Amino acid sequence: MNPVVSNTIDAIQSVIGSEPALLHTPVFEANELAYVSKCVTTGWVSSVGSFVTRFEEMLSGITGAAKAIACSSGTSALFISLKLVGIEPDDEVLIPALTFVATANAVSHCGAIPHLVDVAETTLGIDCTKLERYLKAHTVIKSGRTYNKHTSRPITAIVPMHCFGHPSAMAQILELANEFNLKVVEDAAESLGSYLGEQHTGTFGDIAAVSFNGNKIVTTGGGGAILTNNIELGNRAKHLTTTAKVPHQWNFFHDTVGYNLRMPNLNAALGCGQLEQLKNFVDLKRTLANQYQTAFESVDHISFVAEPPGSRSNYWLNAILLDKAHAHLRDELLQATNERQIMTRPAWEPMQSLPMYQSCPAMDLSQCDSVQSRLINIPSGVSIAQRVPVFDNEGDEDIC
Amino acid sequence: MNPVVSNTIDAIQSVIGSEPALLHTPVFEANELAYVSKCVTTGWVSSVGSFVTRFEEMLSGITGAAKAIACSSGTSALFISLKLVGIEPDDEVLIPALTFVATANAVSHCGAIPHLVDVAETTLGIDCTKLERYLKAHTVIKSGRTYNKHTSRPITAIVPMHCFGHPSAMAQILELANEFNLKVVEDAAESLGSYLGEQHTGTFGDIAAVSFNGNKIVTTGGGGAILTNNIELGNRAKHLTTTAKVPHQWNFFHDTVGYNLRMPNLNAALGCGQLEQLKNFVDLKRTLANQYQTAFESVDHISFVAEPPGSRSNYWLNAILLDKAHAHLRDELLQATNERQIMTRPAWEPMQSLPMYQSCPAMDLSQCDSVQSRLINIPSGVSIAQRVPVFDNEGDEDIC
Repeated sequence: MNPVVSNTIDAIQSVIGSEPALLHTPVFEANELAYVSKCVTTGWVSSVGSFVTRFEEMLSGITGAAKAIACSSGTSALFISLKLVGIEPDDEVLIPALTFVATANAVSHCGAIPHLVDVAETTLGIDCTKLERYLKAHTVIKSGRTYNKHTSRPITAIVPMHCFGHPSAMAQILELANEFNLKVVEDAAESLGSYLGEQHTGTFGDIAAVSFNGNKIVTTGGGGAILTNNIELGNRAKHLTTTAKVPHQWNFFHDTVGYNLRMPNLNAALGCGQLEQLKNFVDLKRTLANQYQTAFESVDHISFVAEPPGSRSNYWLNAILLDKAHAHLRDELLQATNERQIMTRPAWEPMQSLPMYQSCPAMDLSQCDSVQSRLINIPSGVSIAQRVPVFDNEGDEDIC
Repeated sequence: MNPVVSNTIDAIQSVIGSEPALLHTPVFEANELAYVSKCVTTGWVSSVGSFVTRFEEMLSGITGAAKAIACSSGTSALFISLKLVGIEPDDEVLIPALTFVATANAVSHCGAIPHLVDVAETTLGIDCTKLERYLKAHTVIKSGRTYNKHTSRPITAIVPMHCFGHPSAMAQILELANEFNLKVVEDAAESLGSYLGEQHTGTFGDIAAVSFNGNKIVTTGGGGAILTNNIELGNRAKHLTTTAKVPHQWNFFHDTVGYNLRMPNLNAALGCGQLEQLKNFVDLKRTLANQYQTAFESVDHISFVAEPPGSRSNYWLNAILLDKAHAHLRDELLQATNERQIMTRPAWEPMQSLPMYQSCPAMDLSQCDSVQSRLINIPSGVSIAQRVPVFDNEGDEDIC
């Protein structure tokens, strides 16, 4: 076995021990069962109910967003967010090439075209310096709208994705958006509990989507939410995701083509129990990340992916990165770790590698390809974090 | 108070008593809490889990459909069903004008155009005799495709909706579909447990959608399912609703633009507990309907809406119909009943009355308008049915 591989296994096991470890599993040890049971015993399981309202209020409180709207999934939250900022069929929407496929799918569901953007190794999110050069060279601005010179289609929005919980460079992205007339729709699917400075991710742009899928830092089984500081957009999001019904004692009058993309009360109940623990979960996961970082300091040719400067990541999914000279070891590392029941996986296939997106407009994506060929996600769930002995956590005051 | 109104109130209360009565509320008195609790205590709440598989197998067993695919809502199930039979943007899709707005919305979500069809008072579903005359006069068939003569757009599918649980006239609809080259997508949102002869609704056409919203005969909180006897369509439905991911130990490779429209295990667990009681629920609701029917026999100018001949309805939502000379009493009836905490409501606003569908292609819809102006839904839930004394149920052997 290559020493990089064996040293990596040793480093991981020095932090989490030698028991089998999954990548990310949910933990329900507080009020989740009580809240879910209450839904069933009272009969309030469905599309209206007090847990939906409470969940939305808790999300607003946590993130600072003026409005939070619970949805059926992160994908549906992102889709409706894009619709709400006015994305039209045949618009182009800038998205990072390194993302879960839902980012691109939500754009496609609007009839729009993903336009793929390269990522920076420092944030794993959009590389703004490179993107600015690209936009200056390949777009033209007419009547306050930005057009792709090659396709003649308007480029109308940018979707920064806070990769693995690490905040993208929002200050630069907002500057670019301003310069190139782009709506900003944050894909905050992975970044609940992550901040840039004192500001929560998902509150920088026009609107944002969060995910509560089972693998996220907190889960509602399946679900998502829209965040926005624009009350008008928020009200329209609620209206559109709940069949666009106009309130009336008994009439079923709907004023536009709506959707049924709401979160049931049953799922919101689970989510309330989970949100109550978010701070504790983030603390545990940051401690785990801190331990991994220390452990990998002594492993040559591989480094731990740390939060970008000025940010406080939820470290949703921890990642390690081989250096370029050792990229060829990635699959051996995946094989060796998974054989030892240390669950690892590569980053998603980049969008340009998927058949339905390979012909999308795209800038040079060499950094994305490079990162994708070298990155591995390692066990990161709260239950894994709980294995880290508390007496090792001197550096993290939040855990005490 | 008009005697029709007071006699109606008396008839309803003679069946369900004078306690307040909602239209339809779920009942969870069997294994629902145990199953949902199991999800939380084992951590299996999300997108994969044994309850999802079990729920799908139970649905197949109950309906006789070769494949059942659990989804996030009835609307999403109908949307994916339409996509799967090949509905393209700018196709026209025949739908009944009297339906919940989701039928039309699912067509719109495909980029297609609802083409509104009149309903028959006997079934509350598509009037096939009238539709056949209309299609012969207003369409032209070229190369095996049917085109609207006026818009030149192809008419590619028909969506019968089994209104309030009463089966539409599927034999005639299938004949029409054959003659006019239409795919048949059944909107069986309301008809789980309803049969035509010995065959379950939702298994006559190419594919069908069921709803498990909180107001349905059984609920998953929010949810739906696709039914089909076409294994290939069923497999594609599962693939499309679960992000179109190609199975692999660790790679995230997706082969087409997919959706995240799956039902979480938590919701499927609730649904398994509910499906175990479906037969009992249908029996209770048929007994309630039977009692209402008897009670309304002695009320002049208003009649109980009974299941169509040759069918066995689940009587999801009971309805009464004023005669044409007394249509003007509908709103007084709604007001008087709701004031007495007998929850009633009119049928949905017909699609041609909604701003986004009022310009859709449509045949003469006078029967729909007439029915809609005279129909009232009355309390119908299982908890209401449970109020009906068992000793009154001599005529229904299933209840004994």
